Amino acid sequence: MPIGIGLLGLGTVGAGVAEILLSPQGRHPLVADLELRQVAVRDLNRPRPIPLSNSLLTTDPAAVVANPDVDLVVEVMGGLEPARSLILAAIEAGKAVVTANKAVIARHGAEIAAAAAEKGVYVLMEAAVGGGIPILEPLKQSLGANRIERVSGIINGTTNYILTRMSEEGASYGDVLADAQALGYAEADPAADVEGGDAADKIAILTGLAFGGLVDREAIPTEGINTLQTRDIDYAKELGFVVKLLAIAERHGSDPDGSEVVDVRVHPTLVPKEHPLAGVNGVNNAIVVEGEPVGRVMFYGPGAGAGPTASAVVADILNIAAIRQVGAGGSQDALDPLLAASSWRNCRLVDQGSTCHRNYVRFQAADRPGVIGHIGSCFGSAGVSLQSIVQFETEGSGAEIVVVTHAVEESLFQQALSAILQRPEVEDVRCCLRTL
Amino acid sequence: MPIGIGLLGLGTVGAGVAEILLSPQGRHPLVADLELRQVAVRDLNRPRPIPLSNSLLTTDPAAVVANPDVDLVVEVMGGLEPARSLILAAIEAGKAVVTANKAVIARHGAEIAAAAAEKGVYVLMEAAVGGGIPILEPLKQSLGANRIERVSGIINGTTNYILTRMSEEGASYGDVLADAQALGYAEADPAADVEGGDAADKIAILTGLAFGGLVDREAIPTEGINTLQTRDIDYAKELGFVVKLLAIAERHGSDPDGSEVVDVRVHPTLVPKEHPLAGVNGVNNAIVVEGEPVGRVMFYGPGAGAGPTASAVVADILNIAAIRQVGAGGSQDALDPLLAASSWRNCRLVDQGSTCHRNYVRFQAADRPGVIGHIGSCFGSAGVSLQSIVQFETEGSGAEIVVVTHAVEESLFQQALSAILQRPEVEDVRCCLRTL
Repeated sequence: MPIGIGLLGLGTVGAGVAEILLSPQGRHPLVADLELRQVAVRDLNRPRPIPLSNSLLTTDPAAVVANPDVDLVVEVMGGLEPARSLILAAIEAGKAVVTANKAVIARHGAEIAAAAAEKGVYVLMEAAVGGGIPILEPLKQSLGANRIERVSGIINGTTNYILTRMSEEGASYGDVLADAQALGYAEADPAADVEGGDAADKIAILTGLAFGGLVDREAIPTEGINTLQTRDIDYAKELGFVVKLLAIAERHGSDPDGSEVVDVRVHPTLVPKEHPLAGVNGVNNAIVVEGEPVGRVMFYGPGAGAGPTASAVVADILNIAAIRQVGAGGSQDALDPLLAASSWRNCRLVDQGSTCHRNYVRFQAADRPGVIGHIGSCFGSAGVSLQSIVQFETEGSGAEIVVVTHAVEESLFQQALSAILQRPEVEDVRCCLRTL
Repeated sequence: MPIGIGLLGLGTVGAGVAEILLSPQGRHPLVADLELRQVAVRDLNRPRPIPLSNSLLTTDPAAVVANPDVDLVVEVMGGLEPARSLILAAIEAGKAVVTANKAVIARHGAEIAAAAAEKGVYVLMEAAVGGGIPILEPLKQSLGANRIERVSGIINGTTNYILTRMSEEGASYGDVLADAQALGYAEADPAADVEGGDAADKIAILTGLAFGGLVDREAIPTEGINTLQTRDIDYAKELGFVVKLLAIAERHGSDPDGSEVVDVRVHPTLVPKEHPLAGVNGVNNAIVVEGEPVGRVMFYGPGAGAGPTASAVVADILNIAAIRQVGAGGSQDALDPLLAASSWRNCRLVDQGSTCHRNYVRFQAADRPGVIGHIGSCFGSAGVSLQSIVQFETEGSGAEIVVVTHAVEESLFQQALSAILQRPEVEDVRCCLRTL
C-alpha cells in the first residue's frame, strides 16, 4: 500500500530526498511505495533542480502536516522554529516524522519523544548525525546487547576539512576558513560549525541512544577550533598526534539511584596517529563506538551533502514503511522498542572537575636553563604524571615548552597549572588541548 | 513478555551469547526479556567457562528445536549438517532462527529463505559476516534508498593478520601461518581461511543483501593467500600499494530481462595506500559499501572473537524480540520486509572474460636491454594501457619486471600475457594479482 510523504523544505537535502522518491528503479522495491504528495517551499517561483509538478508545492508547511493524504512528514527545513512546532503538530495528528534536524532534536528531544510515545508514532533522525553514515540505526538495532563505554567521533565535516588543510599545508585557520567558505564547505556564518555547537548537538543525540537517557544539551562543555593555532597542530604532529575536533561521550560511572553518569564534551583533541580516527580527512565523518563485549567498531563516510543525507532520510522513511506492514502503531506499546528508541534510564553529565584526561599544554617561558625541570617538578608535586616535555625552537624570544600528560584528574591538572604560572620564568599557558 | 531462547552449540560464540543473556544489567532492557531455556552441547561433562545449570543442557539439538518453551533458536554450532536440518526444522516449527553460520547461509540460503517466507518467520545472520561489525543490518535497514554499486571488504581476520605481519616484518607466508596457528589466530586446518572459501561464503551473503538477489556460491571465483610471496607484497609496497585479501561484489550491468549482473570474487588485491581499506590491519575487518546517492561508507571493527560475534548474535535476537511487540509474523506478508530481507530481483554472476580490472603482474625475464620495451609494446598492441613498468633488483640471475595496468578487459589482458610469453626473453609470469 502506498505511503503518502509530505516534505517540509526543498533545499539541498529536500531536493535529494525528492530525487530518490521520484526514481525508485534499482533501489529497494519499498521505495516505489513512497508517494511524494506535497512539498512546502519558501518561494513557489524559484527554479528547482528537479522536475516537480506545481500542484505538489505550497508555501504553507502547516498545510502539508494537516494534509489527509500525507501519512508521514519529512522535516528538512532546519532551524528551531517553526520546525519544532511542525514536528509536534505532525505527531499530534498521528503521523510519523523523519527529520534531519539535529538542533531541534538535541534541544527539544525530550518533548518530542514524549509526544511521539503518547501518540504511538515513530520520530526518526538518522540524517541528523553523520550525514549518510548509518550510525543511529546501528546504535539502536545492532549494538543493544552491549554495555556502551564510549562513543567518539569526527561529526562535523566543515571543521575536519579545515583541520585537514591546516595540518597538510601548515596554513592558518583564517586562511583555510575563507577558502572553505569560497568553496561552499563552510557557511557565511560559520559559528555553529567552528565553535563546536553543531558537533555538540550531534553528540547529545548519540549520547541519548548509546546510554539510553537524554542529557542537557546546553550543559555540554564545547570548545571549537576557531582559536586553534597552526603551530599546535605542527607540534602535535611532531609528537605523533593529529589534531581533530572530537565529540566524545563516555561512561563515567553511576549514581546511587542508578542514573548513568556520562562525560560528554566537544573539543579539539590530539589523536594518536595509529588511532582509526586519525586517518579520517576532509569532509568525511567517522564515529567509533566502544562497548562490552563488542570491542571497538567504527562507522565512516560522507558526513554531509545532498546525496548522503537524503540516503539517510529515505532509510528512515523505509523503516517506517516496512514496520507498517507488521503493525500500525497508535500507542507506545504497539511500537518496535528498538526503532522507537525511547529512553530507558536516567543520564546526567559528570562534574568536569572529577573527570580524567590526558592533556597537551604549551607554555610560553623564559629561555633559561632549568625551566623544563621546574615545570616537570610542579606537575610532579601535584601528582600529574607526564608522557613527554619538549622545548620547541621558536623564532622570537623566549621558549615554547610543550607537555603531554598521562591521564590525570582535571582538578589536579588545574592545580598544577596554577602552581606553574606562579613561577617567574613561566609567562603564560598559550594552548591547552585534550589528548585521546 | 519473556522470549524463550534455545542455543545450539556452546563453543566460543555460544558461551559469549549465554554470558550476555545471563548478565542483562546495563544493556538494553529488552535483553532482560530473553530467557535461555535450553542449550545443546556435545559433551555434558566438559567444564564450562560460564555457570549454567545442568538442567539446561542436552546433547540432543533436535530436542532444543522441538522444545515448546523455546520460541527462538540460535544456531552457533557451525558446519553444514546437522546445522542446515536443524535450522529448517526450527522454521518448520514456526520458530525464528538466528545463526552465525556463513557456510550454511551461503550454500543453502535460498532453501532456508523459501522455508522462512512460507512460515512467516525471521532468519537473521548478522554474526555470519564481519563478526561484531554491524553490516548486514545497515545494508538491510539503512541503505535501501541506494543503488548499490560495489561492496568490498576485508572479511577474513586470519588472512588479514597473516598479510599484515608479512607486510610489516617481511616474513614468509609459511612462517607467519605457523605463528598464527600457535597463537590461535589460525585453525589447525587453515584451508577455509587461507584459500579464500570463508571470505567467499561471506561475500555471497553480502551480495544477496546488497543487490537483492542470490548468486551461486560455488561459482564465485576464489583465490586465497596461500601461494602469495613476500616479494610481491614488498614490490607492491614500493609501488604505493598494500596487499589485502579482498572480497568484492560489484554491479556489472543488467540483462535484457532485468536480472542484475554482478562481478563477485575473492582474491589478494593491491589496495592503494590512501584507500580506507589499506589501513585495516591485524584481525580487524572492514566493509566498504558504495552506492548512489550515499557515496562511500565503511564499517570497521573486530571480525571475529567470542565477544564481538556474540554481540551480533544477540542484536539479531533483540530485533526479533522487538518486532514481536508489533506483530507476531506467521506469514510472509506479516513480516517486516527490510528485516526479513527476501530477494527482490534475479542476480547472476558475470562472465569473467568480460570484466574489467587493473592488474599487477610480475614477469621473470632475461636481464637484457630492451625487455621492458618489448613487454610494454606487447601490452600496447593488445590495447592494454599501463600505469607503470618497473624492473626490480634481484639476487639471482635474470630480471624481475613488474607491470601495473590501468583497467582493462580480462580477455584482452590474457591475450597480451600470451603474446608476451611467446617472446624468448620472457621466461614466465610469476605472479598475477588484481589491483583496486
